[in-house]
Amino acid sequence: MMFKERINAQKAKELFLHSFQPISKIETLPIEECDGRIIAENIIASIDVPHYRRAAMDGFAVMASETLGAGTGSPVMLRLANIMEKGTCMRVHTGSPMPEKSDAVVMMEDTVLSGDKVEIFAQIHPFKNVGAIGEDIQKGEIILNRGRLLRPCDIAVLASLGIGNIKVFKRPLVVIIPTGEELVPRGKKNLADGEVYETNGLMSAMYIRKWGGIPRLLEIVTDSPDKIKEAIISNLDADMILTSGGTSVGKRDFVPAVVGSLGKLLVHGVGISPGKPTALGNINGKPVLCMPGYPVAGIVALFFYGKAAFRRLGHVPDEPERIVRAVLSGKITGRTGYKTFARVKIDNGIAIPLATTGAGILSSVSKADGFVIIPENIEGRNAGEEVEVVLIE
Amino acid sequence: MMFKERINAQKAKELFLHSFQPISKIETLPIEECDGRIIAENIIASIDVPHYRRAAMDGFAVMASETLGAGTGSPVMLRLANIMEKGTCMRVHTGSPMPEKSDAVVMMEDTVLSGDKVEIFAQIHPFKNVGAIGEDIQKGEIILNRGRLLRPCDIAVLASLGIGNIKVFKRPLVVIIPTGEELVPRGKKNLADGEVYETNGLMSAMYIRKWGGIPRLLEIVTDSPDKIKEAIISNLDADMILTSGGTSVGKRDFVPAVVGSLGKLLVHGVGISPGKPTALGNINGKPVLCMPGYPVAGIVALFFYGKAAFRRLGHVPDEPERIVRAVLSGKITGRTGYKTFARVKIDNGIAIPLATTGAGILSSVSKADGFVIIPENIEGRNAGEEVEVVLIE
Repeated sequence: MMFKERINAQKAKELFLHSFQPISKIETLPIEECDGRIIAENIIASIDVPHYRRAAMDGFAVMASETLGAGTGSPVMLRLANIMEKGTCMRVHTGSPMPEKSDAVVMMEDTVLSGDKVEIFAQIHPFKNVGAIGEDIQKGEIILNRGRLLRPCDIAVLASLGIGNIKVFKRPLVVIIPTGEELVPRGKKNLADGEVYETNGLMSAMYIRKWGGIPRLLEIVTDSPDKIKEAIISNLDADMILTSGGTSVGKRDFVPAVVGSLGKLLVHGVGISPGKPTALGNINGKPVLCMPGYPVAGIVALFFYGKAAFRRLGHVPDEPERIVRAVLSGKITGRTGYKTFARVKIDNGIAIPLATTGAGILSSVSKADGFVIIPENIEGRNAGEEVEVVLIE
Repeated sequence: MMFKERINAQKAKELFLHSFQPISKIETLPIEECDGRIIAENIIASIDVPHYRRAAMDGFAVMASETLGAGTGSPVMLRLANIMEKGTCMRVHTGSPMPEKSDAVVMMEDTVLSGDKVEIFAQIHPFKNVGAIGEDIQKGEIILNRGRLLRPCDIAVLASLGIGNIKVFKRPLVVIIPTGEELVPRGKKNLADGEVYETNGLMSAMYIRKWGGIPRLLEIVTDSPDKIKEAIISNLDADMILTSGGTSVGKRDFVPAVVGSLGKLLVHGVGISPGKPTALGNINGKPVLCMPGYPVAGIVALFFYGKAAFRRLGHVPDEPERIVRAVLSGKITGRTGYKTFARVKIDNGIAIPLATTGAGILSSVSKADGFVIIPENIEGRNAGEEVEVVLIE
């Protein structure tokens, strides 16, 4: 038996991404905990920053009009005072409030102080070296928009506004269901022939956490439609469902059919290589990604479909991949009609294709620094060609 | 008073990075907790993966010699059996152990099963569709080298080897000391004129955590040499020291002198803009970065010096920045002799320079998607030029 169909990689992704809505659950958190989170409200400045006229230089606050005619050879003399009045100046530091009546700061370098007399050697304009109220941020201004991913520097801006808590979207809860009667839990000693440690679920859980989600990694489920159904049904509180294994067309491959029976199976068989047996579905409005059990096929499906779906679900804005340009040391061949993910190692600007004998070779991913992605309509890339390597995070 | 010197940005970095050694402290952790950590030992495979001969396809295990002459029009007939012997074949699934005596798997597609008779329509070679013992990983092989940053896919490989715990370098402990008598703690209500919320320390702490370190953010220290000295001395258990503020040449700028009195002040005044008042030092072999108090100068110093030092300290391998190419909508000017970090916003492939009136404009960082970095010997970049924008993480 073969796949009934194989859907173009990108088309399948669009189908998948349009089959569900981003989450709407919101929580209120202290800003200190919000690095990497997505804001769920427009943040409006409730104060001006700065909230007072501040000196922008170390020097002397003056009334600018009194420096008229000052120059290198013709200093104006002012008296150092504690209260500003005609004929005086006051010492200010960067950031200190401007004294009333003063309207400019003469830089330290343009002055000579002797006793309480200050010689001013430069004429300056009003407002020179003075930070106006609201210069950085104006009261009422939208300072961060809903949907923004918060970086530490954004949180610093929130802190500068005196904001303590903000509303962010909840982290998506992603249930991960490893299936396969050949799998045994990590920690078991002395594997029998045919037994394999469960690794795909663990790996997926760690990527979900890295991407900002909350992974819920279930125990291994054996290749039984009832058990798989049970596992899915009892985890429908999750925002997204990832399964691993059981997606091929063998006698023990039940996962896509179970997804179809509980919701909608959108796609089974996609144009990515490795990763063709991937299935995409939707149960109760929640995205379901069924990853092939072969480790490398699984990781490609997770990166290509899982990450995109996770980001849409969690309102996470797009971000460019980390890319390195390198020269291929040997030919790589794409699989016709498939978007091919070829693993390469990078050494001193050279991309070395990793010889692998199939999707089961997990170590080839660990040896790999990244993927060269070969589009469907390209036969491959030749030795000596410069290629873009998408780094594996 | 002016800076005695200004050292080239890159030269200062090299001086700084060569003034200390990476940490040697190691801890043993469960692999599940090691995403993003750096391995402190070579990992050697203690088992073969797979540890048994496995079928690489769904189909029938056969003795390859018995398929001699089989073809589309001339099937070979074998008997479906439970024990392999001459004239028989056995059903296998991908990953299942190869029966003794069998040496190849005929794909499902090349067979027709009726009753206990299997017609084989293809002649195959020995070892075809069979995964050899150690095909993925060989016992004794170094599978991950000391100094590698662990990605989830690497941890999956460790899991596939049955490895439960590994040695990793400890996360560097970084003490962060915000200084400045103008600073007030977050949470205080109704700022007086001249008061500013502490944000640089908070921001630095969050970046340190993001980069994989353990931040220890101290309370605000006022502009007193004794208090600054006390804060540093009581935190010399840290692996790295970050201070913020008090690095200029004003009357209240004591930090570099204190660093010099406790250890070695390597550099004060560097060729980055904003960020010139940065100081770099070393106390007891530990790197000390003194960031300017102006928020944007501070962040540039943190990115350019702090991140590089942190990565060296923690054995973190270099990684390319996330970069976007965009066309400048307006001219940006570099400061002669300085490596200039110009903030830009990116909109649909257009990089829009952010008009700012100085290093104090923290909101310009929050509005910015990234920096266009203008080298020392370039005057600037013109509207219409394509530039690389280093995204602010």
